[in-house]
Amino acid sequence: MSVSVETSAGAAPTPGDTSVPARRQHLAQRTLAARPSEVRKVFRAAQRPGMISFANGAPYLGALPFERIAADAQRILLESGERSFQYGSSDGIPELRAHICELMKLEGITAGPDQVIVTSGSQQALDVAARVLVNPGDVIFAEGPSYAGGMAVFTSYEAEIVHVPMDADGLIPEELERLIGEVRADGKTARGLYTIPNFQNPGGVNLSAERRLQVGELCRSNDLLIFEDNPYGLLGFDGETMPAIQPGFEDITLYFGSFSKMIAPGLRVGWVLPPASLYGHLLNASETSQLNPAVYSQQLISAYLDDPAWRDKLVEYRAIYREKFNALVETLAEVMPAGTIWNRPTGGFYLWVKVPAGIDTEALVYDCIERGLVYVPGTAFYTDGSGHNELRMSFCLPSLDEIRKGAAILGKVFSDAVAGAASSD
Amino acid sequence: MSVSVETSAGAAPTPGDTSVPARRQHLAQRTLAARPSEVRKVFRAAQRPGMISFANGAPYLGALPFERIAADAQRILLESGERSFQYGSSDGIPELRAHICELMKLEGITAGPDQVIVTSGSQQALDVAARVLVNPGDVIFAEGPSYAGGMAVFTSYEAEIVHVPMDADGLIPEELERLIGEVRADGKTARGLYTIPNFQNPGGVNLSAERRLQVGELCRSNDLLIFEDNPYGLLGFDGETMPAIQPGFEDITLYFGSFSKMIAPGLRVGWVLPPASLYGHLLNASETSQLNPAVYSQQLISAYLDDPAWRDKLVEYRAIYREKFNALVETLAEVMPAGTIWNRPTGGFYLWVKVPAGIDTEALVYDCIERGLVYVPGTAFYTDGSGHNELRMSFCLPSLDEIRKGAAILGKVFSDAVAGAASSD
Repeated sequence: MSVSVETSAGAAPTPGDTSVPARRQHLAQRTLAARPSEVRKVFRAAQRPGMISFANGAPYLGALPFERIAADAQRILLESGERSFQYGSSDGIPELRAHICELMKLEGITAGPDQVIVTSGSQQALDVAARVLVNPGDVIFAEGPSYAGGMAVFTSYEAEIVHVPMDADGLIPEELERLIGEVRADGKTARGLYTIPNFQNPGGVNLSAERRLQVGELCRSNDLLIFEDNPYGLLGFDGETMPAIQPGFEDITLYFGSFSKMIAPGLRVGWVLPPASLYGHLLNASETSQLNPAVYSQQLISAYLDDPAWRDKLVEYRAIYREKFNALVETLAEVMPAGTIWNRPTGGFYLWVKVPAGIDTEALVYDCIERGLVYVPGTAFYTDGSGHNELRMSFCLPSLDEIRKGAAILGKVFSDAVAGAASSD
Repeated sequence: MSVSVETSAGAAPTPGDTSVPARRQHLAQRTLAARPSEVRKVFRAAQRPGMISFANGAPYLGALPFERIAADAQRILLESGERSFQYGSSDGIPELRAHICELMKLEGITAGPDQVIVTSGSQQALDVAARVLVNPGDVIFAEGPSYAGGMAVFTSYEAEIVHVPMDADGLIPEELERLIGEVRADGKTARGLYTIPNFQNPGGVNLSAERRLQVGELCRSNDLLIFEDNPYGLLGFDGETMPAIQPGFEDITLYFGSFSKMIAPGLRVGWVLPPASLYGHLLNASETSQLNPAVYSQQLISAYLDDPAWRDKLVEYRAIYREKFNALVETLAEVMPAGTIWNRPTGGFYLWVKVPAGIDTEALVYDCIERGLVYVPGTAFYTDGSGHNELRMSFCLPSLDEIRKGAAILGKVFSDAVAGAASSD
């Protein structure tokens, strides 16, 4: 999320900031325009030892075959160390791009390795795309709520996010259509739709197959680009895989993929499959921003995917995440105050929880942190100030024991808040 | 360098571009404003098998202790695989930041690990800095010639590069002062100075100690930021190390460092030490652009630096590069046409060559490529169309044999061109 150091404020937002405010004339307009956010404090709290964290959208890595991966890591450097450590191609190594095309095939995407650009995580791909495509003042539609880091990319290029409401089948096409009309009527440029169609972050819902077509057609007829962000598509608890939006809309869709949720975020490997017409522009921008993606990281991912055992590991992870999810919702059902509701995601990393109106999750997160639990307040996922009685719970990384203990803390703090509110009425 | 696919052109600039032009209304203004460049073709030629390349500013990696590094790579994953593969801190891992501070101390910089932000190579650091600090239309001063990739970062945010002439002691302060006045008189905003003070890319010169102070004072009194880019500082042939500009100008200098030239570009690890007042802004922007630098890459660099043997390796590299440099200039002296001149860098990666006026290095590079040699034409290093009778030769990666053969090809092609020009007079 975009966090601005207020130039007039004395508070040091980061360890290295020694309370010296920046001179306003040194900062670009896009920096001065950045919204301050409180959420970074929450993520810093999540790093404290002993803290139970529902905050980080981080995968559980304990089931990875590190002995095998470590042996690969050694072998690759002994066999081809100079390649691993030298500058590489700005679009990524060919063997990884071939694997990426195989992966995308699972979601109905037909693409060749020469159409794919590997990036430092899909975050960098989003960043490059926004740089190439977004002007200050443009409107980007995004589900409400949506991924804070994705929205931060667009707003860092001074785009305005307009949220499209969701229901159990994902974003509502009629609402998108209505909002496109409103934006146009306001004289603004509607540039594109940023959507996470599978196990949406943070909503947890899937965009239905029927709506994928509707949304695609709507974007086409209104000349909107589709930014399809899909880090979770293969992580359905039961292995069900939805077809991507991209097929049929190849000319207007930028598809973003990532190995961060399935394998290893620390390697920072993701990719973008853009329309052919945008490929050259994106590649140039990616090269300007970082020359090329790290070669060795790509080789490690590629080696992992060379062994068909990665599919069994994926099945194992789905089961682990399903069990954690079940533990979370079972505990929540026992401990949360009346009037708290949540949906039932069938995969992904997140549970989206709504608490009774009047309970402010942004204020209460500090009470929870004091008791050893951290989550992300709902306000982080909207750019319009919504979300005060909502929160996101990431359930993949904490242990079953932590999940139960953490949920119990949440239940206690929120129940006390409800009781406090009632007694002060 | 910034390369634009001309929307009206049919030529496919990249493998994935299937000659489908982008619709202009889809592209951001900063994309439409990008200058087309021919140089990318040259770098693609450099990747052909059998090509002798003086084009890539790439280090020689053959002397790296890959057995030891591979053992480290394995050990790290066995000991702390979950840390290596998990999301990391957006400012980088603490042990690497501590090493970075030790390195910077060698150049007279006093800084603590909490002031440093690790990035995906210094390229990403430059990119983040430009994003935070540069508005469209701002002027950035840069040596003429200067690093194409650095200038591309600034121009991608629609800055204008104004070149400051150099002599044997680096950029000329009086010229900088004069140009600041001109820019101001034109009503433009002079935002900062981008400089590579050590073994400048591509000029090969060092900014003298006296001028470092003059330049710092000039920037301070004119409210310019200093973007001090220093990938080569420790790579003097004889190990001489110049003090950085940053000490004494900590409040206006962003110092950029890199492990790409000293250890391994393929790991993509660099850093920025910004003024305290800008730290928070840069960290936020870096997080937006890629969440965090790759953890495992940082651990590998850190492990390499844990063993004091890295200093002996540096000494070894200096000797290797000196020998290659000597072979290059000795051969050039034998083969180049009369009127060709070059300077004598005392370190770094580059020799800057001026050929007789009328000989166009941008045209002749294709003749050289046909004969199996590639270099970078001088035009890549200016934004004002200069450089047609100049070229950059990177001498660190090719073998001694390739250097001699490559220089001979260059001498033949250029001598033929001179003879052709004379005979057609």
